[in-house]
Amino acid sequence: MNTFKLIIVIILNLTLIYKNTYSQLPIVGNDQFMLWYLQPASDWNEALPVGNGRLGAMVFGGYISERIQLNEESLWAGSKTNSDRDTKAVLPIIQQKLLDGKIGEAVELSEKHLKSDPIRFRSYQPLGDIFIDYFYNKDKPFNVADYQRELNLETGIAKTVYTQNGITFEREVFASAVDDVIVLHFKANQPGKLTFRLSLKRDRDATTNSVGENELLLTGQVIDLPDDEAEPSGLHMKFASQLWGKTIGGSLKSINGSYFVENADEANFYLTAATDYNLNLLDYDRRINPAEKCREILNKAKEKSYLEIKNNHIAEHSMLFNRVSFNLGTDVDKGIPTDKRLLAVKKGTIDQGLAVLQFQYGRYLLMGSSRSPGILPANLQGIWNQDYIAAWNSDFHTNINLQMNYWPAEVCNLAETVKPLSDFINKLREPGRVTAAKTFNSKGWAINHATDVFGRTAITARVMYTSPMMSSWLVLHQWDHFRFTNDKEYLKNVAYPCMKEAAQFVLGFIIKDKKGQWVTAPSSSPENTYQLPNGEKYMLTYGSTMDIQIIRELFNACISGGRIVSEDENFLSELETVLKDLPQTKVSKRYGIIQEWIEDYEETEPGHRHVSQLFGLYPGTQITPGTPELFEAAKKTISRRESYAQGNTGFSTGWSKAWMVNFLARLKEGDAAWGKILEMQREKTLNNLFDTHPPFQIDGNFGLTAGIAEMLLQSHSGIIELLPALPKAWKEGCISGLKARGNIEVRMIWSEGKLTGAELKSNDNQLTTISYCKIQRKIHLKKGELLKLDMNLMKIL
Amino acid sequence: MNTFKLIIVIILNLTLIYKNTYSQLPIVGNDQFMLWYLQPASDWNEALPVGNGRLGAMVFGGYISERIQLNEESLWAGSKTNSDRDTKAVLPIIQQKLLDGKIGEAVELSEKHLKSDPIRFRSYQPLGDIFIDYFYNKDKPFNVADYQRELNLETGIAKTVYTQNGITFEREVFASAVDDVIVLHFKANQPGKLTFRLSLKRDRDATTNSVGENELLLTGQVIDLPDDEAEPSGLHMKFASQLWGKTIGGSLKSINGSYFVENADEANFYLTAATDYNLNLLDYDRRINPAEKCREILNKAKEKSYLEIKNNHIAEHSMLFNRVSFNLGTDVDKGIPTDKRLLAVKKGTIDQGLAVLQFQYGRYLLMGSSRSPGILPANLQGIWNQDYIAAWNSDFHTNINLQMNYWPAEVCNLAETVKPLSDFINKLREPGRVTAAKTFNSKGWAINHATDVFGRTAITARVMYTSPMMSSWLVLHQWDHFRFTNDKEYLKNVAYPCMKEAAQFVLGFIIKDKKGQWVTAPSSSPENTYQLPNGEKYMLTYGSTMDIQIIRELFNACISGGRIVSEDENFLSELETVLKDLPQTKVSKRYGIIQEWIEDYEETEPGHRHVSQLFGLYPGTQITPGTPELFEAAKKTISRRESYAQGNTGFSTGWSKAWMVNFLARLKEGDAAWGKILEMQREKTLNNLFDTHPPFQIDGNFGLTAGIAEMLLQSHSGIIELLPALPKAWKEGCISGLKARGNIEVRMIWSEGKLTGAELKSNDNQLTTISYCKIQRKIHLKKGELLKLDMNLMKIL
Repeated sequence: MNTFKLIIVIILNLTLIYKNTYSQLPIVGNDQFMLWYLQPASDWNEALPVGNGRLGAMVFGGYISERIQLNEESLWAGSKTNSDRDTKAVLPIIQQKLLDGKIGEAVELSEKHLKSDPIRFRSYQPLGDIFIDYFYNKDKPFNVADYQRELNLETGIAKTVYTQNGITFEREVFASAVDDVIVLHFKANQPGKLTFRLSLKRDRDATTNSVGENELLLTGQVIDLPDDEAEPSGLHMKFASQLWGKTIGGSLKSINGSYFVENADEANFYLTAATDYNLNLLDYDRRINPAEKCREILNKAKEKSYLEIKNNHIAEHSMLFNRVSFNLGTDVDKGIPTDKRLLAVKKGTIDQGLAVLQFQYGRYLLMGSSRSPGILPANLQGIWNQDYIAAWNSDFHTNINLQMNYWPAEVCNLAETVKPLSDFINKLREPGRVTAAKTFNSKGWAINHATDVFGRTAITARVMYTSPMMSSWLVLHQWDHFRFTNDKEYLKNVAYPCMKEAAQFVLGFIIKDKKGQWVTAPSSSPENTYQLPNGEKYMLTYGSTMDIQIIRELFNACISGGRIVSEDENFLSELETVLKDLPQTKVSKRYGIIQEWIEDYEETEPGHRHVSQLFGLYPGTQITPGTPELFEAAKKTISRRESYAQGNTGFSTGWSKAWMVNFLARLKEGDAAWGKILEMQREKTLNNLFDTHPPFQIDGNFGLTAGIAEMLLQSHSGIIELLPALPKAWKEGCISGLKARGNIEVRMIWSEGKLTGAELKSNDNQLTTISYCKIQRKIHLKKGELLKLDMNLMKIL
Repeated sequence: MNTFKLIIVIILNLTLIYKNTYSQLPIVGNDQFMLWYLQPASDWNEALPVGNGRLGAMVFGGYISERIQLNEESLWAGSKTNSDRDTKAVLPIIQQKLLDGKIGEAVELSEKHLKSDPIRFRSYQPLGDIFIDYFYNKDKPFNVADYQRELNLETGIAKTVYTQNGITFEREVFASAVDDVIVLHFKANQPGKLTFRLSLKRDRDATTNSVGENELLLTGQVIDLPDDEAEPSGLHMKFASQLWGKTIGGSLKSINGSYFVENADEANFYLTAATDYNLNLLDYDRRINPAEKCREILNKAKEKSYLEIKNNHIAEHSMLFNRVSFNLGTDVDKGIPTDKRLLAVKKGTIDQGLAVLQFQYGRYLLMGSSRSPGILPANLQGIWNQDYIAAWNSDFHTNINLQMNYWPAEVCNLAETVKPLSDFINKLREPGRVTAAKTFNSKGWAINHATDVFGRTAITARVMYTSPMMSSWLVLHQWDHFRFTNDKEYLKNVAYPCMKEAAQFVLGFIIKDKKGQWVTAPSSSPENTYQLPNGEKYMLTYGSTMDIQIIRELFNACISGGRIVSEDENFLSELETVLKDLPQTKVSKRYGIIQEWIEDYEETEPGHRHVSQLFGLYPGTQITPGTPELFEAAKKTISRRESYAQGNTGFSTGWSKAWMVNFLARLKEGDAAWGKILEMQREKTLNNLFDTHPPFQIDGNFGLTAGIAEMLLQSHSGIIELLPALPKAWKEGCISGLKARGNIEVRMIWSEGKLTGAELKSNDNQLTTISYCKIQRKIHLKKGELLKLDMNLMKIL
């Protein structure tokens, strides 16, 4: 950045100080958080996402023809199936064989007995598309100038502007959470110049009809593979989408499923959608009429003008978004289009501002895919998917990916986004109890590697996906929600009951191995394969390192939480007793890495994308500088994974790199973390800044945002660590609004790589410890008061 | 070809002799004419076309999802406009300025006055798509084996066959001209294995609804740019498509615009479509109800079983297709997939059989895009187009491309395909009279460079497209239809009236230039630009070489035809008088080429794709070995064009190369013609053997077929020339069923590059002359009798 620009930034920052409720620390205006381009999207991965947690849209920004691809969060193929088979009788045999090292026999028995029936998942599906054709006079040269499309993260508005034959056209698309509609706005700077056709279509299983002069109604029912046994019919979920349009000036007609707008000055469209799914995971509810639901929503929205809806949307959206402000002492916007900027980075430019933009983009995407009016958590693609059979069905992978989606939620001050996850976990208990009882002969609730909207918890597809500890991992998000919010009511009524039931499952499921340790069996280290000395390769195992680490994490959480909600001490001491006889996390004698399995097996794929044995490092809290041997082994684990990573399948996948940023932050290796971010930018970032596995998978975006936060603030150990992993390259910076456990908002400013000031605002009276470098200090925080500290944390300003 | 294969071919041929109504000359079974592939089409240019002259479909052959893209010949955006402005007053001024060499001023005046209003064309549009999703059990590996898709030119059936999880699936798609439906047939070799969803969609301006249990009805109305002046509304043509389905075994439901077929043994679907367009060029006829038209057609078809419709279709289709049989002494099918075969050719393989296949494919495509039940001629893409705004609107370019489509029609024994063209020309007279009167102040009828289904004849888009002689060119196809069929009723009632009116237009339009010659003014040499000595560049001119050649060709045709229909001799002698004072075709002093313009102007683009000054060589009859100076100059014209051809825009476009094959055939340069065919194969042939300009433009296919015929048989001079331009590389061969003027079917066999036998079958008693090499012989032909000649044509066998 040149000096002139720096001065401008500083002046801007100084100006903004007064807008902020904090104090003298400068911030960068969030209006700099913009993705922008000088040409329309040439494919889906260049289109720009908007979402209100329930409705999503990908805006292409074409000026000849425009596509706006639509999603509704619950629109899935499939239906609820009671798929657990009663395998109680065979379970002990399988367990014994695993303990006896007869893995092949155990696998064979498991394949035969443990899998659910039917074992298929269906896919999350798109809602449809809006196609717009802009009519222009073909005689004249097709003269488009000053084209720009952009996504403003602060307002949540995707805008396209261009000039054609002297007329400036402007379009806006946004998804309002307030009014639960997607809004399309068309305007020209001369009257009567808007003439276009707009169609609402779904090219499978649906039909769009004109409903009166100014409405289109798309209605449909998913047709998918019928299942001979459990489901006699392939007729699945019903859905509807309704679109209401109005022009100022000119005319609007609704004909044959399209609108025809002629000579209008301005045109506005509100779209909503619904399905007959309900969150009780009770399949679809035929009492719900999706078209009627749409009508109810639209009837309210229609009463409001475009400006009213827009202003309410901006207020609500920016209120959430602006909670966190972040800069690295440089312009976030470099004055070059986002795709060109990314290209420059791919060619070697170092661009801290792009990382800042990606950080905020992760927050934006989480807001767009997981919050009220939505009821479902963000899936593998958040809420944005154009495929009828999506990659991995765009489902909920519970062996890391669903959890990863929520890593940034609390620390990045978007606790609201956790509600759909928490509700979903709560609902999963019901099928999870069936799986616990029928598959694993236990109490409580269990879920394996993945689920769909209908809450499948059984072992699906292959026995290698046996992962009974995933309910225990999921509920840790509810525990963390409590830790970040201090919401005791939530702990008592929601989190603890789910945690306790998960712990009860564990208690009923674990068995003693030959060494007298409590182990899980059968289980796996997610998606990874080990090799026996005789050359046989297996995934099924017992007591995988991750399983044990999850149990330890869960039991400790239950013990802490249980004491707060006054749990019966007998139960808590049962947990304490088990904790004592859990296997320790071990270091491989061969490679000095954290051992992934109960034995020091050879790894089949040492560059594998999953690094499950480091659960204890992140998101867990067991591998810390306080466990120096494990801490060192964790470093070695990463470098070994990295040295074997190949192509797109291994540790070099987008989300895997994002996980690494978090690992490195916990390892206090800021420079390495920044290096990994650069790799993600160069190799794993699509033009619309979506992370790519490949293909697009949103957990990479969320993991990156979480990782950046983790580099700047950590609180998992009970101590609030300021700038624990600040890279040298991030010399100057300022971040405000991050949250630490304890419901504490934190603001930090640094210069020349050193903290120059910090502010804490607690929402409760509490005693906490903060640390920076070698300095630690206990401080008393008072509810609502802003505590300002100097650069050595020694002086309260 | 190895010896073994050659023997097989000979044996095959010998076997086939007895099937043929001719005699001992061998033929290749037409069942070898197959396009086939081992994978589904990855894009539109790999899909396979079927058509019945009115309805067209492109079959992709997918096994996960399948697309069948649909067309109906009359579905256009736009409407009839009375667009001619009255420019009588200004015409003489423009003409005088052109004669005076004040071209700039003439252009300016023309731009201001001569253009029609509105001047736009709209586009031919797709009807929609059928999407099919084949459901399979996702648990099992997606195991497809033995996949093949093919298009059998003899039966007109596109077939897809593959095996999945041990079950063989077979699908057929064809367009029946007999029953006016597109038929889809699905079958598996085990009962109850067909489970799929089938949707009928159009993603603009239409909606599809379920009509009863087993029917879908798509209805719509084209929305396009409204025109402020002539058309107040952008609501254009209405259209409908209806699909009827029935299964054997299992069930079929029609839901939300899709079908859901479950567990069927077999499934059949009949589709038809209609618009409210009528050929009176009277815009659309709101009395026509497209849905009712569909219902009428379907009600009849539904009465027939799949096998009945299929058998009737094959009988009708193969009856036309099998009229011509052709081989070059080698297998037509090489046992390698068509795309791989094309790739081999692109890498240098010489593959005569591919040329034979392309020859027959041109005939197939003409049958598919221009015959009853169709009423419109083949457009720039025949009948197959997936774009809402197609390349050049997929319109009728009358400055060569529409004509070129019909070059193969008569000689390749598909006279039926000319009826839609002839009817269209007939109808064009009505607007053409308005253009003649209002724009050109003349009698008769005129048309310029292009038209749409609504018969626009005025000057559109730019004055450079002023080409008033195009009506005269068009009617020459009607004259040739008479010459090939000897149908005097047709000559009297259809052809001659159109020809005469075109000639009347010429008489009223031409003026005397300063040398006392009759010239056209204003006009152009289609799409080409000349340069004045002062550097100014223009397209507008007077008396372009092509114009004069067309007039000469038309007037001679009128004189011959007029005498047959007993035309008033006064009119005919008026033509003869004018003929004397037409400018002669000249040779450029500069380059020795045929001069394109009235003066020996410098060419701006010497490699231009149009070679209009060679109209007299082909399709005209004025440049022949009997005009040796012009004949030599024609050769030089081609080599100069060729040496300047660049990239995709010039003389190297697909259709331009096809024109060249015809030129070279007329120049008796067989080897050069074959070289040009090889170029087309290597550079201008898409994987489905569509010719590419680029993009796909069907005149290249038709021009190639015509060119191959022209290499083997010519009759334009009144003499039937056998093998006039046989390349050395076509050593062995046999062709039967080609037609010579005089309604004579010709069969020839050759070996070692020499004719070894010929057979003629005349449908009239007549005296004709045949020639081969230097040999000429007059022969008397008797109606219906087969005349067999030896290799020297001297001996009647």
